[in-house]
Amino acid sequence: MTAASPVPPVPASVTPGDLQPEMPPTRWGDPAAAGPLPAATRGLVDLVFGHHDTPARDRVDLPAPDLAPYHLVALRGLVGEDHVLLDDDLRRRRTRGKSTPDLLRQREGDLADAPDVVLRPADHDQVVAVLGYCAEHRIAVVPFGGGTCVTGGLVAERGDLAGVVSLDLGRLRRLLALDPVSATATLEPGLRGPEAEALLAERGMMLGHYPQSFQFASIGGFAATRSSGQSSAGYGRFDAMVVGLRVATPAGEVRLGTAPANAAGPDLRQLFLGSEGTLGVITEVTVRVRPLPEVKVYEGWRWPDFATGSEAMRQLAQSDLLPTVLRLSDEAETAINLADPESVGGEEAGSTGCLMIVGYEGTAAAVAAKQRAVTDVLAAAGGAQLGTEPGESWAHGRFDAPYLRDGLLDAGVLVETLETATFWSNRDRLYTAVKEALTAELGEGTLVLCHVSHVYPTGCSLYFTVATPGGTASHNTGDTDTGAHNTGAHNTGTHNAPLERWLPAKAAACAAIVATGASITHHHAIGTDHKPYLVDEIGEVGVTALRALKQALDPAGILNPGVLIP
Amino acid sequence: MTAASPVPPVPASVTPGDLQPEMPPTRWGDPAAAGPLPAATRGLVDLVFGHHDTPARDRVDLPAPDLAPYHLVALRGLVGEDHVLLDDDLRRRRTRGKSTPDLLRQREGDLADAPDVVLRPADHDQVVAVLGYCAEHRIAVVPFGGGTCVTGGLVAERGDLAGVVSLDLGRLRRLLALDPVSATATLEPGLRGPEAEALLAERGMMLGHYPQSFQFASIGGFAATRSSGQSSAGYGRFDAMVVGLRVATPAGEVRLGTAPANAAGPDLRQLFLGSEGTLGVITEVTVRVRPLPEVKVYEGWRWPDFATGSEAMRQLAQSDLLPTVLRLSDEAETAINLADPESVGGEEAGSTGCLMIVGYEGTAAAVAAKQRAVTDVLAAAGGAQLGTEPGESWAHGRFDAPYLRDGLLDAGVLVETLETATFWSNRDRLYTAVKEALTAELGEGTLVLCHVSHVYPTGCSLYFTVATPGGTASHNTGDTDTGAHNTGAHNTGTHNAPLERWLPAKAAACAAIVATGASITHHHAIGTDHKPYLVDEIGEVGVTALRALKQALDPAGILNPGVLIP
Repeated sequence: MTAASPVPPVPASVTPGDLQPEMPPTRWGDPAAAGPLPAATRGLVDLVFGHHDTPARDRVDLPAPDLAPYHLVALRGLVGEDHVLLDDDLRRRRTRGKSTPDLLRQREGDLADAPDVVLRPADHDQVVAVLGYCAEHRIAVVPFGGGTCVTGGLVAERGDLAGVVSLDLGRLRRLLALDPVSATATLEPGLRGPEAEALLAERGMMLGHYPQSFQFASIGGFAATRSSGQSSAGYGRFDAMVVGLRVATPAGEVRLGTAPANAAGPDLRQLFLGSEGTLGVITEVTVRVRPLPEVKVYEGWRWPDFATGSEAMRQLAQSDLLPTVLRLSDEAETAINLADPESVGGEEAGSTGCLMIVGYEGTAAAVAAKQRAVTDVLAAAGGAQLGTEPGESWAHGRFDAPYLRDGLLDAGVLVETLETATFWSNRDRLYTAVKEALTAELGEGTLVLCHVSHVYPTGCSLYFTVATPGGTASHNTGDTDTGAHNTGAHNTGTHNAPLERWLPAKAAACAAIVATGASITHHHAIGTDHKPYLVDEIGEVGVTALRALKQALDPAGILNPGVLIP
Repeated sequence: MTAASPVPPVPASVTPGDLQPEMPPTRWGDPAAAGPLPAATRGLVDLVFGHHDTPARDRVDLPAPDLAPYHLVALRGLVGEDHVLLDDDLRRRRTRGKSTPDLLRQREGDLADAPDVVLRPADHDQVVAVLGYCAEHRIAVVPFGGGTCVTGGLVAERGDLAGVVSLDLGRLRRLLALDPVSATATLEPGLRGPEAEALLAERGMMLGHYPQSFQFASIGGFAATRSSGQSSAGYGRFDAMVVGLRVATPAGEVRLGTAPANAAGPDLRQLFLGSEGTLGVITEVTVRVRPLPEVKVYEGWRWPDFATGSEAMRQLAQSDLLPTVLRLSDEAETAINLADPESVGGEEAGSTGCLMIVGYEGTAAAVAAKQRAVTDVLAAAGGAQLGTEPGESWAHGRFDAPYLRDGLLDAGVLVETLETATFWSNRDRLYTAVKEALTAELGEGTLVLCHVSHVYPTGCSLYFTVATPGGTASHNTGDTDTGAHNTGAHNTGTHNAPLERWLPAKAAACAAIVATGASITHHHAIGTDHKPYLVDEIGEVGVTALRALKQALDPAGILNPGVLIP
């Protein structure tokens, strides 16, 4: 048991009140925190994939801003001279999100989806003013929180609109209210995860939402995408933390949340949660908060196989006996985590068993009681307690994977993740189907790793990581049609070998997910990448409902056009 | 600790497969289970209010069915000759719900809101067919589950529509699927609470949703109104139990629920949950189920006052340490429950303190562990354990209150309930405001009782019971314009003394709720009674969103017209 640090590590560059950290356009995260591939990983790459230096382009051309000057004048009047930004560097950083396809396009210099201008409104009223102006003049507005989207949610369809504005919410970053009696906090959407936690920690409270993107993602983004974090077993999904919302829409303002729950018609909070910026701009989020935990304990448990470990998770969830953190790696992911790639997929497959991380946070008494009860269940179900070392190791590196991805992309290894969710009785079928689809599409030498990342009484989510030789990046081999990269539409124009290798694999995985009746996304959202599958999720009538809402709230169709709604 | 009975008592007349029980048109429940007022209550009535025999009218006239014969022919073709029902008795039983105003109107013989015809479709496809026909011919459709609504949700606005059909879902009462691995069950909407529990109990499972209306309310109604039950602390609100829905809308069918939770856009399940029959007819509900509990323990706890007890509830909820049942009566309700009316409101007010019911259900081990932890918190917070007698007594009578209401109405005492929810920091202000509003409007000799009925980490609901002299029923004094009772529009036409006494009090309570920023309804829904306050709940833009959905899914406006959506 270790004394609790108040919040997970905050990048050195982030303290409340500072300017927010900017990620490089072609990479994840804080450049100061990034480094070369660890030696063990490098060795693994050489062994499994072979190493091919695949650097990103240093210099790229950006399409010139294409918004009439009189619009810029008007927008300056709304948000101030200093907050209508046209510079190439910022526009490049506001182009797309941080999926592997996004990075591959950026690395190739494909900036066709760049916004014309970046606006930084100061508050709700300025957001309202911008929406009013843009609706009147038919200018697309792409709400931008942390820019960590991995499903193409920041790619606006320009269509016949007058231009594309990136609505950067980074200045809306206040803790507006803390109600210690009700245990609620009202946060502005531009607060990044660590900023929000730091503001709450100063007051002895916490939110407890730690997705992989935590260090850069924003409160507004968590709400708009129905995010789920690594502590969801204990603290719940982000949408379950939300008790109130304020939303600016072109049709006017909405405030929702008179009580934790009510029966006053459909719960309209759930309309804006997950709306991905297409129905309105979330300008305030009221969430449940908790006292900072006295203690945090993260343990490892070993399971003979994935099915046995999953079954134990199901048992915990159905007994309403969940720890704070609960995740289970399959045999392949466990082997990779142990830097033992030879045991992955070969005859030795499964020899390492499966690693489960079990974390407890709270008061000392509550942690002790929960730990006792959970330990009884896990031990009876066939798990072996490994102590806190594997848990601490996981906690230490819990936000590092995206940095590792950059290093692997540099080394010519294509790495991407995808996730889904289903009911327990369908877990194994889904697992097998996705794994087979990816392997069949990407061929020999592909690693497909998986973990159960979130659990519910009735089901769970599966999170897959894929690593495969990326093919040779086109601009290193000279076969790129470099002239096209600034003019083509989204997804076209540039020959991008790793991207062309990945997209059919992703499509195959999505088809497998749909075929098994699972959800196309548990927490990454729809964006543009998953849009073709939304109808499988909610049916034609569901799509009709979304379109009707869109038409009512955003009749000019300016809010994140082309995202989410088919 | 007592051995668990599998489910709460089922009315003798209900076993799966039987015809469903019918409530009398002017009273609650099973006539066989109803009786005269208990002697203690009768004494209390004489003491506090004085007794005035106020029987319901025995014979009343019903407006003649007003639907063209060729529609009846067509509808018979869709659901079968035997399931298009025009008889007066059934139509009278399908008129309105079971609020006190509903009963007062029925008792006065006001049947102006009677449907023209009752249809009993056999399955989803027949529901679809009926909706198609009625949309084409502009016939209003009022979905009918258990008929227990208390907010006017069964009162269709006839407008210029061709007629009003009561769509009785009582034949859709199958357990369609039970997935023991995922712990889900798919239920048809016409199953009443006890029927659903009995079907699950045969398979060792339970749902655990026990609203006051449990014995007669239906699965579809629970979903359509976002119901909440007496065991919500442990088992959650009904909407939180739902993982899947099938809905027939005039625009087509929707199936929702690919996974327990996902991030595939807004959670559209939440659009139909709470839609009160205005957006579609729910034809299947998939819910989380649980193993039948090994043990059930219900305890009483005494608190010095309402505030101290509420504070302890807040502490439990914010520690994620909730028992299965948790409710706290205020001083007045506690005194009445102890049949000690003299201590209510007088100098002795508060002398009895406040009674809390704390119930635990589950495996023996889980109950023991939870009981230990909860007991520690409650004892430290100032509660005194009273043992199981008060808890057992509560559990025994948990569904009796509506029967008591009938007896009190017979005795000339006006009794009604209303409920609201708010965040913890606003609890006391809300409590005081509603109590004062009711007392000010109804005057001396009015009892206002309250309990905290549902708790959340961030807030709770308050459930008020009001008892006041009802005035003399009009048909006993001869001053009724009896000629008007079959022709007037809803809410008008008949002089109804108790109703005219109640409605301004209800309006005053609603105004107090809105003024304190609380929710107009925690679990009774909007119906027609709360419709004027929906805009306070969701704003003009929220109303715009609902109207857009209505227009998209029910363009002919036939589904429960006039209900919910302003």
